[in-house]
Amino acid sequence: MRRVIDENIIKKATEEYPTPFYVYDESSIRSAAQKIKEAFKWNKGFRNYFAVKALPNPKILEILLSEGMGLDCSSYTELLLAERIGAKGSDVMFSSNDTPAADFKKAHELDAIINLDDISHIDFLEKEAGLPDLLCFRYNPGDQVHGNEIIGQPEEAKFGMTKQQIIDGIKQAQQKGVKRFGLHAMVISNNLDKSVALEIVKALFDLAKEIYETNNIELEFINLGGGIGIPYKLEEKEFDIDGFSQEVEELLRTYLPYEPAVFMECGRYITGPHGYLVTKVRHIKHTYKTFIGLDASMHNLMRPGMYGAYHQITILGKGGSGTNSYDLTGSLCENNDKFAIDRKLPEIEVGDVVIIHDAGAHGHTMGFNYNGMLRSAELLLRPDNTVELIRRTETPDDYFATLKF
Amino acid sequence: MRRVIDENIIKKATEEYPTPFYVYDESSIRSAAQKIKEAFKWNKGFRNYFAVKALPNPKILEILLSEGMGLDCSSYTELLLAERIGAKGSDVMFSSNDTPAADFKKAHELDAIINLDDISHIDFLEKEAGLPDLLCFRYNPGDQVHGNEIIGQPEEAKFGMTKQQIIDGIKQAQQKGVKRFGLHAMVISNNLDKSVALEIVKALFDLAKEIYETNNIELEFINLGGGIGIPYKLEEKEFDIDGFSQEVEELLRTYLPYEPAVFMECGRYITGPHGYLVTKVRHIKHTYKTFIGLDASMHNLMRPGMYGAYHQITILGKGGSGTNSYDLTGSLCENNDKFAIDRKLPEIEVGDVVIIHDAGAHGHTMGFNYNGMLRSAELLLRPDNTVELIRRTETPDDYFATLKF
Repeated sequence: MRRVIDENIIKKATEEYPTPFYVYDESSIRSAAQKIKEAFKWNKGFRNYFAVKALPNPKILEILLSEGMGLDCSSYTELLLAERIGAKGSDVMFSSNDTPAADFKKAHELDAIINLDDISHIDFLEKEAGLPDLLCFRYNPGDQVHGNEIIGQPEEAKFGMTKQQIIDGIKQAQQKGVKRFGLHAMVISNNLDKSVALEIVKALFDLAKEIYETNNIELEFINLGGGIGIPYKLEEKEFDIDGFSQEVEELLRTYLPYEPAVFMECGRYITGPHGYLVTKVRHIKHTYKTFIGLDASMHNLMRPGMYGAYHQITILGKGGSGTNSYDLTGSLCENNDKFAIDRKLPEIEVGDVVIIHDAGAHGHTMGFNYNGMLRSAELLLRPDNTVELIRRTETPDDYFATLKF
Repeated sequence: MRRVIDENIIKKATEEYPTPFYVYDESSIRSAAQKIKEAFKWNKGFRNYFAVKALPNPKILEILLSEGMGLDCSSYTELLLAERIGAKGSDVMFSSNDTPAADFKKAHELDAIINLDDISHIDFLEKEAGLPDLLCFRYNPGDQVHGNEIIGQPEEAKFGMTKQQIIDGIKQAQQKGVKRFGLHAMVISNNLDKSVALEIVKALFDLAKEIYETNNIELEFINLGGGIGIPYKLEEKEFDIDGFSQEVEELLRTYLPYEPAVFMECGRYITGPHGYLVTKVRHIKHTYKTFIGLDASMHNLMRPGMYGAYHQITILGKGGSGTNSYDLTGSLCENNDKFAIDRKLPEIEVGDVVIIHDAGAHGHTMGFNYNGMLRSAELLLRPDNTVELIRRTETPDDYFATLKF
């Protein structure tokens, strides 16, 4: 059972800060970071590189670094974010695609672990920034494994290299002086099924074995990627991280005569359940249905409107189940600006505080300014139960910053 | 046939400004504004209120105001935008939903035409800002008309009021001193079929007739909404605006013994075809398919990745048809970050300029900062063929503005 934040704390925060806001629970995030480390303690080099894009707030990233995590950055700006909080070298993995020269230069400057998405990037990186000692390659296993429904079939995906390209790429890089290698793949997203995740692990280990047998190269690390899901719905089961780790260990022993460090790049799995979007009921509207108009809109949390994603919703002091059927909406002029459709909830009144759960990843970070909407604040609930503002609300001046009148 | 921007101008712009950028063609936008006015010249009060959310750049809005258009604003920030360029009173229509008090106050302060989305908003508006002389009501015809596939069934939509609520609402508002009334509906989006648009017109006129017959009220205006589409695909036909206008006139004469002003709130129809996202080829990747890696990503133009929307694409100097099959991608760590899948195009080389057409509405405005991506600049192509920067590119400092390190 995951810990759910104390409602009194949320209530107090709504008295201190105007809704809507995100609040992240530091203790739970630390526990999640410790849990994945504990699960993989058999592997002495294990490290999770937190997918920065899931929750790119420096305060959260500092917490994760202090728990021993690294940062998985995908762009120049995310590298800057890492730099500003003092992360560098092996703290940072740079996994990008269609990569600009400036990004490679920055990654090189930070001495980050660079994960190449394409064989042509060996020459590009060499030319633009120079080649590091250690280089990682991103594997796309094509039709050898099946991605889950969210990410689609790997051979249609823009990410990664074929097996042959990786084998050739390692040779090319060796000739250019690269000495140490890593391997990476990521072909699932928000997946709760251990067996699906293990398919990719097998494909990675199989390739690592081939690299060992044909090139006599021991990989420094194998990055199993992220994509570990969280149970957004109450009836869903948590991903079995201990069982997964155990099977990874067994597979590693089966496939490889040596033990590379195992890396992962989980984002959602670490912070997803430990963030909440807190919003108040502004209006209740009765037409052909009953619409609960919140002071948050899809620009605060895109997942329901964009993907039809489900988020658990509770009403402060009233719980999350009831016999009233509501559409919970925001105020965007967009038909899909709904957090839930026909959701059964307790009776809701104007002014009620609505808590949208599992918003600690791919929440605020995916927000937009469509309709002139301003993105919300982010709060951190500290272990001592005090609340800290870790991102302020946007203002119209922020919205107008790139314009001249 | 719509005018397509001169490729030499785009070429010159790419020499002056770093890609990616949007460029909007002032002459074509002015022509589009004149065309809709001309189509409805039979109605002396006709006015299109440009849906600001489609392209919220003050320079574009000034151009549209100078062509006699009004501005349709949906939020506080959009009202501020209108205010900053001097629009007020009947220049501004405020059509919102789940409306915050502050937004109503601002609309009232600007003396904008306020379009109420719910019957409960009469009291809310009165309490928060006071009631104006003129009030508009947004109609949701429910199952009496069918929305098109994009916007779904009207009775599921959060927008608008039932017929009875509008009839009751007018009485309530009259008792509170409101003297003049307007009526509005908007239940379609990006629709090219005149007959679908006319369904809504009939429903509006039918309600206007009922209001006239039972309450003896002559509406000051009827706002037919927007939702007029543009032919994103070459084989699609332009919306028949002249034929539509003619049928609106005939229906109006049939239903009503008086002639209210006809308003519309087209956004996409006015600017959509006259904006281009201009991007360069950064990388070409061959794995299981050939991927063209652009320097624009889905954060610059969300429609293809978010909706699977089609945009015509041409390669500068090479045209838009060929026998090579490409996926055109950006650099986001998102599987759906593709502008086109399996698109047949001329042979593409690194450095080629790629022009994504029909990006003049719901383009830049829907962009996000996911993956730390920065939103692009916007340029205006003036009638004298010079190019003006009307929005600068975002910088990392913009991205970090709401954070403290």
